[in-house]
Amino acid sequence: MATDMPSGQPGSRRVDTGRISLNVRERGAGPLMLFFHGITSNSAVFTPLMARLSDRFTTIAVDQRGHGLSDKPETGYEANDYAEDIAALIRTLDRGPAILVGHSLGARNSVTAAAKYPNLVRSVVAIDFTPYIEVEALDALEARVNAGSQLFDNLGAVEAYLAGRYVNIPAAAIRIRAESGYQAVDGGLRPLASPTAMAQTAKGLRADLVPAYRDVTKPVLIVRGEASKLVSAAALEKTSRLRPDLPVVVVPGADHYVNEVSPEITLRAITNFIDA
Amino acid sequence: MATDMPSGQPGSRRVDTGRISLNVRERGAGPLMLFFHGITSNSAVFTPLMARLSDRFTTIAVDQRGHGLSDKPETGYEANDYAEDIAALIRTLDRGPAILVGHSLGARNSVTAAAKYPNLVRSVVAIDFTPYIEVEALDALEARVNAGSQLFDNLGAVEAYLAGRYVNIPAAAIRIRAESGYQAVDGGLRPLASPTAMAQTAKGLRADLVPAYRDVTKPVLIVRGEASKLVSAAALEKTSRLRPDLPVVVVPGADHYVNEVSPEITLRAITNFIDA
Repeated sequence: MATDMPSGQPGSRRVDTGRISLNVRERGAGPLMLFFHGITSNSAVFTPLMARLSDRFTTIAVDQRGHGLSDKPETGYEANDYAEDIAALIRTLDRGPAILVGHSLGARNSVTAAAKYPNLVRSVVAIDFTPYIEVEALDALEARVNAGSQLFDNLGAVEAYLAGRYVNIPAAAIRIRAESGYQAVDGGLRPLASPTAMAQTAKGLRADLVPAYRDVTKPVLIVRGEASKLVSAAALEKTSRLRPDLPVVVVPGADHYVNEVSPEITLRAITNFIDA
Repeated sequence: MATDMPSGQPGSRRVDTGRISLNVRERGAGPLMLFFHGITSNSAVFTPLMARLSDRFTTIAVDQRGHGLSDKPETGYEANDYAEDIAALIRTLDRGPAILVGHSLGARNSVTAAAKYPNLVRSVVAIDFTPYIEVEALDALEARVNAGSQLFDNLGAVEAYLAGRYVNIPAAAIRIRAESGYQAVDGGLRPLASPTAMAQTAKGLRADLVPAYRDVTKPVLIVRGEASKLVSAAALEKTSRLRPDLPVVVVPGADHYVNEVSPEITLRAITNFIDA
């Protein structure tokens, strides 16, 4: 499928992990720090964070399966499928153990991978995805995800749509999503993310995440947006009861899209965790 | 004064920092991890944590000025006095930057030292002392501190007193406090901690801690006992507003004496922070 895709942005390349070929963006040198985006998104959303961290880390942001310019198999969008991709990528890069920074779907996948493959993971920054998310919040997420598969006239129409969907994300970050997440098709622009992959992935987010959080032995920083409509204060509270030893950062004013809405606090939260 | 003191416990020795001579307990090898106790206490309270961390760290617990077997000058018990001692100790040990683990007074002193001397400090675990502690909580602390200067008939009387003062601390940890914190005098046992030093130190805890927390650039893990009567949920909340980028751990069921009441969660919180 990759040959039908637009050419990768500067710094991006495909990595054949053996089980799947993933598109990644790489910048910098140092210990390995991998970034995993949320559902329907892609690696480009981490560009601003990578710019700030690449002086000290080999920062690699990944288009996860079904997203961006990576392979999009017809099926296989459960937590375990994504986590096995992470493990295969770290093995292929051969520079682990890796620091994993994940947002939403990416956080779920990162914690799942860390629980299953502790030797490949140094630590996890898990942004706004925990166990105990209420069914209503997952229903709303699934509806938003499935509504995103549209034909847009042009980039302006994409930006207008995204600005309405992500009301707190600043214009510059909306532009990154618009420019990186769509492809030219007959009649306009369509999301790069595969609609069938997104539908399966959204369903997969409903699976019980308690075992992974309960069992993970590597350090996990739990980050929540104070105004998140996905991770409620109650869900975070229950997660902290499950794992009181895991440090927590709650970002004031941020909604679910913490790293795009509050990149500066996200950056400092990451470095306060990694540099301790 | 030190010559009047009972001989140090196994593993303890005095370090002349140039500005003050401090009694310390040392165990293990690896990166430097220093421990600073709360008011009226001493280095022995960290023995259980040190036993678990000394396979990977050079763990050194310190009798802070006025406490235990360290020097007890007549005056000089403000935050800055204690913080300068920490800086002088790290310089004397010549193995910094150090990880600082502080409880209560020790947390206040550690954050103060980290803010003033970032090059000497790698990170801080600040257990149950934050800015914004309510005046009533500090009043109660000061009353408890000043009531501790008593003559006890014997060790059993000390243990009974401590068990009543620290109702959630397990018997084994009470015993450590009793055996390490008192000296034989005519008629019985008295606290090693200097009463005048304790009174001054308690008053010094009222000084504004906002500047140190606001300015500190090194990673600080804020640990609070969920049932702490010193650091209220509101004080922690305000502290997180001041520094939303600092990770937080709230230990379920623990009161102010987090590391003695919940040593296992404290240990895992420390390693999750340090190993990230």
